[in-house]
Amino acid sequence: MGWVRSAALAALLLASTAVARAESPPLTLDQILAAAPKDAWRDLAPDRLMVMQLPSGRVVIELAPRFAPNHVRNVQRLIQARFYDGLSIVRVQDDYVTQWGDADSKHPTGEGRLRLPAEFDRPLLQSDPFTPLGDADAYAPATGFTDGMPTARDPRAGRVWLTHCYGMVGAGRDMSPDSGGGPELYVVIGHAPRQLDRNVTLVGRVVEGMDKLSALPRGDGPMGFYTSDAQKIRIQSVRLASELPTTEQPRLQALRTETATFARLVESRRNRRDPWYVRPAGHIDVCNAPLPVRAAP
Amino acid sequence: MGWVRSAALAALLLASTAVARAESPPLTLDQILAAAPKDAWRDLAPDRLMVMQLPSGRVVIELAPRFAPNHVRNVQRLIQARFYDGLSIVRVQDDYVTQWGDADSKHPTGEGRLRLPAEFDRPLLQSDPFTPLGDADAYAPATGFTDGMPTARDPRAGRVWLTHCYGMVGAGRDMSPDSGGGPELYVVIGHAPRQLDRNVTLVGRVVEGMDKLSALPRGDGPMGFYTSDAQKIRIQSVRLASELPTTEQPRLQALRTETATFARLVESRRNRRDPWYVRPAGHIDVCNAPLPVRAAP
Repeated sequence: MGWVRSAALAALLLASTAVARAESPPLTLDQILAAAPKDAWRDLAPDRLMVMQLPSGRVVIELAPRFAPNHVRNVQRLIQARFYDGLSIVRVQDDYVTQWGDADSKHPTGEGRLRLPAEFDRPLLQSDPFTPLGDADAYAPATGFTDGMPTARDPRAGRVWLTHCYGMVGAGRDMSPDSGGGPELYVVIGHAPRQLDRNVTLVGRVVEGMDKLSALPRGDGPMGFYTSDAQKIRIQSVRLASELPTTEQPRLQALRTETATFARLVESRRNRRDPWYVRPAGHIDVCNAPLPVRAAP
Repeated sequence: MGWVRSAALAALLLASTAVARAESPPLTLDQILAAAPKDAWRDLAPDRLMVMQLPSGRVVIELAPRFAPNHVRNVQRLIQARFYDGLSIVRVQDDYVTQWGDADSKHPTGEGRLRLPAEFDRPLLQSDPFTPLGDADAYAPATGFTDGMPTARDPRAGRVWLTHCYGMVGAGRDMSPDSGGGPELYVVIGHAPRQLDRNVTLVGRVVEGMDKLSALPRGDGPMGFYTSDAQKIRIQSVRLASELPTTEQPRLQALRTETATFARLVESRRNRRDPWYVRPAGHIDVCNAPLPVRAAP
């Protein structure tokens, strides 16, 4: 679907697309997804889903244990200890991050810890699933996707890491690399701050409710911190999906990146052949590749 | 300034930075700017500043006549005809754009036009001021800055264009490349959609009040269009700064990109030497380079 001026025109375009169908125009993103076989989708595992209730609704984050096993385990324990319940979103910096939690919390951590050794990157394993993007990246020798997350790798150095794309969630830290762990988390809400890659531990990706974090009022203090308690947004609860009653669990599916559907999707974004585009880019950035998530049918 | 956990810690860090000064640590962005000579700043010309009043406050956009002379002239005429007054923000799509205006408006256009030939890119002129970034870009042979705006160029083809970075403003269009002109405008509020480069005419950049456009509720319709009139945000007025009483004109200055200060600033972001960073990126994306604007002293 092109760049159109109004919702009315969008409907018009859909109609004209249907008419032009005989000349087999390029499929839209929705059409490519609709044609995907059932097994192109994977169910998101409930014990890896962090469900955060805000006054505005639900945010769901898929955790990435393959990249940050200790941080993910710690976040799971902090959730189980109800550490985050009643804490707040304390920082929203435009074109950068939204941040929540509390480093100095007096909340019970249960089995959870306040600090952990860094998991900024890790050794590249031959057994790692990896869907290479193939397009050049100016920050890393190679990029692609693992477990539904955008990743970068340096095959020569034998290292791999998650990349700071829009919607990626990380563990805030202080000056020491080992001072993060999960008590404070942030999500990228602007142009990818790739300079943070390998400098802070990423733990997952928002798969539902991103607008609940990106459309918040920006903080008026330095670095976007809210300056008064009244501005902070209270976190009502954070649960693992597996802790919720079955009927309340998010039932989500993510498109597998190793599928032909995903390859088709990426190519449709790399070279936009929709009639609106006059010049396909011939390139796609790892942070512009779509990583579709849907409600399980 | 590093990535810190709390506002309290930010203050602490500032203090410790001062203490460590004897070992000449890297200057912060604010320190680099504070040391800039007076002539490193240029005054933004009032006749190129579009001042949009929203219920939430003021948005200021600097227009880019060098890249889109006809579109900029047309937008200026539409402003003078009060075309935008009373129109609305109609679309906010997460990680993409906020869009306002009305293609089918019955508002008087005065000398302004509803459609114009495309100005997607233009011939590269030897006389163009240009501050090359120097860093590789995966979408274009070269990137840099002209008139305070992020640009890309293809020296072999002899073409130059503005790039779709966060905060850049463009003229929405329909299917025909010549169907834009300014009645509908959009601003990038997410990861740079560089696939739009050379496919739509960019007309300027937000230099104040970006959060008034980026922190809006996302639209619930297809492509982020608001589905009810109640959701739309009314544009109270749009004026050229030069039309406003002197006391109401924004008095803004932008850092000149051809200065040593700007080079220092970019390098401080390309290779973060702040003590928080353990691994400088060694690279900066054209859309991550800071383009500082300040209130005139």
